[in-house]
Amino acid sequence: MKINPNFTYLGSSAVHSSFRVQLVPNLACFAAAIALSAPHAIAQAPAPREVPAKSVPVPDTVSPQVQKLIAAPLTPTWNVIPATSDDWKAQVNAVYLATMKGLPALRETLHVKVEPMTIDGVKAYSVTPEAIPPENRNRLLVHVHGGCFVSFPGESGTVEAVYMAGFGRFKVISVDYRMPPDHPYPAALDDAMTVWRAATKMAAPRNMAIFGSSAGGNLTLAMVLRARQDKLPLPAAIAPGTPMSDLTGAGDSFQTNAMLDNVLVAYGANCDKRAALYTGGRDLRDPMLSPVYGDMRGFPPAILTTGTRDLLLSNTVRVHRKLRQAGVEAVLQVFEGQSHAQYYRDVGAPETKEAFEEIARFFDRHLGK
Amino acid sequence: MKINPNFTYLGSSAVHSSFRVQLVPNLACFAAAIALSAPHAIAQAPAPREVPAKSVPVPDTVSPQVQKLIAAPLTPTWNVIPATSDDWKAQVNAVYLATMKGLPALRETLHVKVEPMTIDGVKAYSVTPEAIPPENRNRLLVHVHGGCFVSFPGESGTVEAVYMAGFGRFKVISVDYRMPPDHPYPAALDDAMTVWRAATKMAAPRNMAIFGSSAGGNLTLAMVLRARQDKLPLPAAIAPGTPMSDLTGAGDSFQTNAMLDNVLVAYGANCDKRAALYTGGRDLRDPMLSPVYGDMRGFPPAILTTGTRDLLLSNTVRVHRKLRQAGVEAVLQVFEGQSHAQYYRDVGAPETKEAFEEIARFFDRHLGK
Repeated sequence: MKINPNFTYLGSSAVHSSFRVQLVPNLACFAAAIALSAPHAIAQAPAPREVPAKSVPVPDTVSPQVQKLIAAPLTPTWNVIPATSDDWKAQVNAVYLATMKGLPALRETLHVKVEPMTIDGVKAYSVTPEAIPPENRNRLLVHVHGGCFVSFPGESGTVEAVYMAGFGRFKVISVDYRMPPDHPYPAALDDAMTVWRAATKMAAPRNMAIFGSSAGGNLTLAMVLRARQDKLPLPAAIAPGTPMSDLTGAGDSFQTNAMLDNVLVAYGANCDKRAALYTGGRDLRDPMLSPVYGDMRGFPPAILTTGTRDLLLSNTVRVHRKLRQAGVEAVLQVFEGQSHAQYYRDVGAPETKEAFEEIARFFDRHLGK
Repeated sequence: MKINPNFTYLGSSAVHSSFRVQLVPNLACFAAAIALSAPHAIAQAPAPREVPAKSVPVPDTVSPQVQKLIAAPLTPTWNVIPATSDDWKAQVNAVYLATMKGLPALRETLHVKVEPMTIDGVKAYSVTPEAIPPENRNRLLVHVHGGCFVSFPGESGTVEAVYMAGFGRFKVISVDYRMPPDHPYPAALDDAMTVWRAATKMAAPRNMAIFGSSAGGNLTLAMVLRARQDKLPLPAAIAPGTPMSDLTGAGDSFQTNAMLDNVLVAYGANCDKRAALYTGGRDLRDPMLSPVYGDMRGFPPAILTTGTRDLLLSNTVRVHRKLRQAGVEAVLQVFEGQSHAQYYRDVGAPETKEAFEEIARFFDRHLGK
């Protein structure tokens, strides 16, 4: 676990017997004292910024719904690391069950229908709005879900697809890709590409987009790199939300937003341990694993979404800059106060509607009919 | 001074006898201990996030030039508050002299010429690139400088205009507006509007843009509100950089980026004390003072620039969302690791060129010829 030695992990109160909790001694106050007494001790290396402890209130510059998301405690399992494959599966299953419980109401609220399907041997879900407007009849989106490459199997992976189908009134295919512990890279990307290849026969690629957040943002970008490599058609637009674009640990907001983001909380914790099961010792600078290092020339227009407290704020804006440097039309939306992927946490929050309607408008502008 | 009571101000080592340094006792470690021992003490109010002290390294995801900006110590005077008008003027003058020293080399590097002028009684500077490309011959930009409404008088206020003229090869008029302590609101805005009114006779408003950062971002937005109110033509585009869009203290990044931003450092410190000289006890929710509260329908297309460590990150993204909610074409660029307005601190940083070329392209797309 890569940890900034001066950084304090509070650990978690939700400790199960089969889980190992990683704790680092509280060195913060000690480190601050050193910094105050000997600010010029290290002459050569660039000085880090010593940031004192703070108590950060819930801002009043967001909706009451988002205030509630911001006020929520840290994800209980953020630093609870299962020891065995079975323990991982148990942890994943608990979140699966909780997510499944909420899905029927979400679908009802958004008037969206979900049906399982199999595409060339890969499991997927057809996610369809009750009413499809004429301009979207010949359009099709492919969704790759988040969950740090390990979580949200089966129907529980359709949440974001339901939001997109509901707010954007697009037909969506959500890929239920294979995941670790049983299936590390490249299983997920292979499955996503199998679905992409098949989907380009169901609709014209110029009428299609790929989207997904977090690990799904990583896969969205990797799919474009792979499609180019495999000489498959590219989508007309993409929406990588707060992408895990850099699995090497680079990105300033891993440090600046540590303990502020109440979803991922800190680098090197549970989510990154899940990603490590996916990457399985491979070179993390491989653009198929860390797409920020890929060549983005010729990418389709992209819309990126993040929040000011997002642990992946840096790795979202870095992709945005990289795309712009490559001459790609790319737009960025950053939501006030939000931690990682909170733009699809509360279907009733005005910011949620805003985020998805913005993505839908972007797709509408770039997709053929 | 509005201070989060759990927040530690380190104060400054650059203390002059006539300046008063504001220090708050180091309560951080004490507060963290309270938070750990009694996390559910406050039942009703939404719980603040308790963020432990951290030592944040200089990221390697930016250019060496920006690494140097990030590694720089906190602005020495960030919390040194002059006691009298004369003390304020002395502090402003020190920065004026330092800035003037660097200007000739900057102009030479960017091949830009600066000449003083007076427009209907208001002081200004004509900032002109050596070579103006044909598409920019009939275009004209108006620049309002930053400095928390008090700093960068005279030619020292032309820095950002020189960057824009140099990288974008536009003709620029930079307004040397009157400032506190002698001239509070609305002197600056009045002067800017006098120049704007006159400038719309020098070029067609559809060929014009207004831009400026920090206090200049505030004034850029306020000028559009004022132009609409006074039934003057609007510019074809605007570029408010990291705007001081909300002087009430609202905005999550005032807290989340406190002590991380090495330029402004924290809310309620020197910059906000300067802004208070400008607002002079007026209602801070007046959109002419805090433009984020203004009605932005009908605004011209806007490009906003900020950085992930910017104390005004929130107040930049809030304006971006507000513009988008009003149906205005608005784009956002956020630079990795940068504190407040660091995109025009080092003329040799690739990020600097990138930021201004992006703004120039945006102007090129929206301005007539």
